[in-house]
Amino acid sequence: MVNIGIVGVGLVGSELLAQLHATSAKRLKVVGLTNSRNMVVSDTEYKSLSLTQWKQELENSSVAADLGVFAKYLADAPDHSVIVDCTASDAVSQLYPAWLKAGVSVVTPNKKGFSGSLDLYKEIVALAANLGPAPVDGAKSPLAYHESTVGAGLPVLSTLTDLVKTGDEIEKIEGIFSGTLSYLFNNFSSLSSSEGSQSFSEIVKVAKELGYTEPDPRDDLNGMDVARKVTICGRLAGLDLDLSTLPVENIVPGPLQSVASADEFMAKLPEFDDHFKQLNEGAKKEGQVLRYVGLVDVKGGQSGVKLLKYPASHPFASLQGSDNIIKFTTKYFPNGLIIQGAGAGAAVTSFGIYSDLLKVQERVEGF
Amino acid sequence: MVNIGIVGVGLVGSELLAQLHATSAKRLKVVGLTNSRNMVVSDTEYKSLSLTQWKQELENSSVAADLGVFAKYLADAPDHSVIVDCTASDAVSQLYPAWLKAGVSVVTPNKKGFSGSLDLYKEIVALAANLGPAPVDGAKSPLAYHESTVGAGLPVLSTLTDLVKTGDEIEKIEGIFSGTLSYLFNNFSSLSSSEGSQSFSEIVKVAKELGYTEPDPRDDLNGMDVARKVTICGRLAGLDLDLSTLPVENIVPGPLQSVASADEFMAKLPEFDDHFKQLNEGAKKEGQVLRYVGLVDVKGGQSGVKLLKYPASHPFASLQGSDNIIKFTTKYFPNGLIIQGAGAGAAVTSFGIYSDLLKVQERVEGF
Repeated sequence: MVNIGIVGVGLVGSELLAQLHATSAKRLKVVGLTNSRNMVVSDTEYKSLSLTQWKQELENSSVAADLGVFAKYLADAPDHSVIVDCTASDAVSQLYPAWLKAGVSVVTPNKKGFSGSLDLYKEIVALAANLGPAPVDGAKSPLAYHESTVGAGLPVLSTLTDLVKTGDEIEKIEGIFSGTLSYLFNNFSSLSSSEGSQSFSEIVKVAKELGYTEPDPRDDLNGMDVARKVTICGRLAGLDLDLSTLPVENIVPGPLQSVASADEFMAKLPEFDDHFKQLNEGAKKEGQVLRYVGLVDVKGGQSGVKLLKYPASHPFASLQGSDNIIKFTTKYFPNGLIIQGAGAGAAVTSFGIYSDLLKVQERVEGF
Repeated sequence: MVNIGIVGVGLVGSELLAQLHATSAKRLKVVGLTNSRNMVVSDTEYKSLSLTQWKQELENSSVAADLGVFAKYLADAPDHSVIVDCTASDAVSQLYPAWLKAGVSVVTPNKKGFSGSLDLYKEIVALAANLGPAPVDGAKSPLAYHESTVGAGLPVLSTLTDLVKTGDEIEKIEGIFSGTLSYLFNNFSSLSSSEGSQSFSEIVKVAKELGYTEPDPRDDLNGMDVARKVTICGRLAGLDLDLSTLPVENIVPGPLQSVASADEFMAKLPEFDDHFKQLNEGAKKEGQVLRYVGLVDVKGGQSGVKLLKYPASHPFASLQGSDNIIKFTTKYFPNGLIIQGAGAGAAVTSFGIYSDLLKVQERVEGF
């Protein structure tokens, strides 16, 4: 039996609780929940919290959130414990080393700890048995899994890890890592005649209204979310990528990068429709489409985030909706191993977290 | 430390030994090898066999192959053992229950045990901790992994398993599961003007000469290899599929199904080029291409192997080379989770086996 404590119970955390409830998960037991205000922990017998009444219990809890107390409660459990960080907080990710040192495993969709400071990343890797060098005989270390930091539940990081561990040589990882950017360019830049007639600003406007973008769409268009995913993949592939030095093509037009509000940005974006139209038509003349991609270039050293052109026959060109697509080019797969599908949303993010929890449970409980 | 015994050291078994050697695998130790004639097992201390001299040692061995003795040697080891079945033998797969009962795990690319007799399959599932119901507290059972039975090293079965275990509802699994059939129809049926001019028999002839087909191409065209993969996926998705009752469209023209030799088949296949041409042109008129697919239809009950038509925008239509492509349509992924890449060949098959071995080692050695 493995104890679970969940930090952050917004959309993803709630969905995870719903999936655990729906599957009557027998070897995983939720014993602690906390948001930024309150927390609930179970008793000294570490009984399961209610998976149906948790919301009221957390709201009505008189215990103020305290991640130190929360982590100690989990570390003190007689069985192994995992903290699931469902926040997007940099401060929470700074606590992973302390949790791991206390013997608590970490599972998270939070990109901060794995794409931020290289020192923090290396500390996490050194402490987690599945990320660092093979442990010496008999040594027991906690685990850290973060499948949902890239492509949500798509099996991107587990596949990359398997390739690396079995001696494959990763040459290149190329992908459309953002559902938002996928949607924008799949609609804006297409070789079929029925599409591609809308202006770039109109498509951004629709995407914003549908809730596909961040409240300020510049937070998507600046490429930093993609850059974090590139950094995570690159580090797993053995590169010491650093977010602060990774070349990232910010496609927010220069004069709009500094305007104060999202509203002002949206109001002025149509002034730059011609710029995007020219890029699109230039690609179209060559039988190509525009795609905003992240690139880990292990051999060539050209890792980064870029607006690139792809011919109609390329799998990236025929992408639809807001799908992510990731292509590994390796010694074992010289023509590429491709993984494609929804890379955002509570259900698929929670699926990735739940899969990671099962991996921890299986390793902890043995065979 | 986990002991490994390999049954069958042809292309795939040799590649696995090479990959283990190249990665200096520290927690996996090869202690036994056997082909259909000779075998070599290590000493009573279960020391590692030489990963560079194994071929000579096996050839020069005076010990006759005996799978009973081989399995007992592995079962008697103080540490956990795994038998890797690199044969395609039905008889070897019948031994899995005995091995599992003796506490030995099984890892294999051999489709027979997982796509043959439903009784055998259910016996394996009941004995392997990772396939059957969650074990009761403290119980230890061996494991059985068979990622490479479908799509070689592509993460098809691990992803399907994760989806099922986390409560996803599988609606449909649709795929081009055969590298051979992928190559034939990618070349024969294309919407681009530069392709599709060769006759079907010419493409089969080239594929045969390149070694892409079985010695008798009817063993590809009869759909039985695809049917086995459909059966394996369907069973993991919860269906009691049976190879003997699964509807399989044999695309070998009727009169050629009974001709005696592969040579006679190849000689007479051109007489049926018009038949295939008409099918292709019929599809093309609708803007579609022909693809030979396997289908697991969990909700509609239409599982089987079929020659189907797909529009240009479908990912199956733009497939190239001899890639496999598998699409899961589920509650979590209503628009599909797609995995694509090389699904045959020694390197990628061995990669799948090696990944499975790491899963066994991680579960056995714990965290």
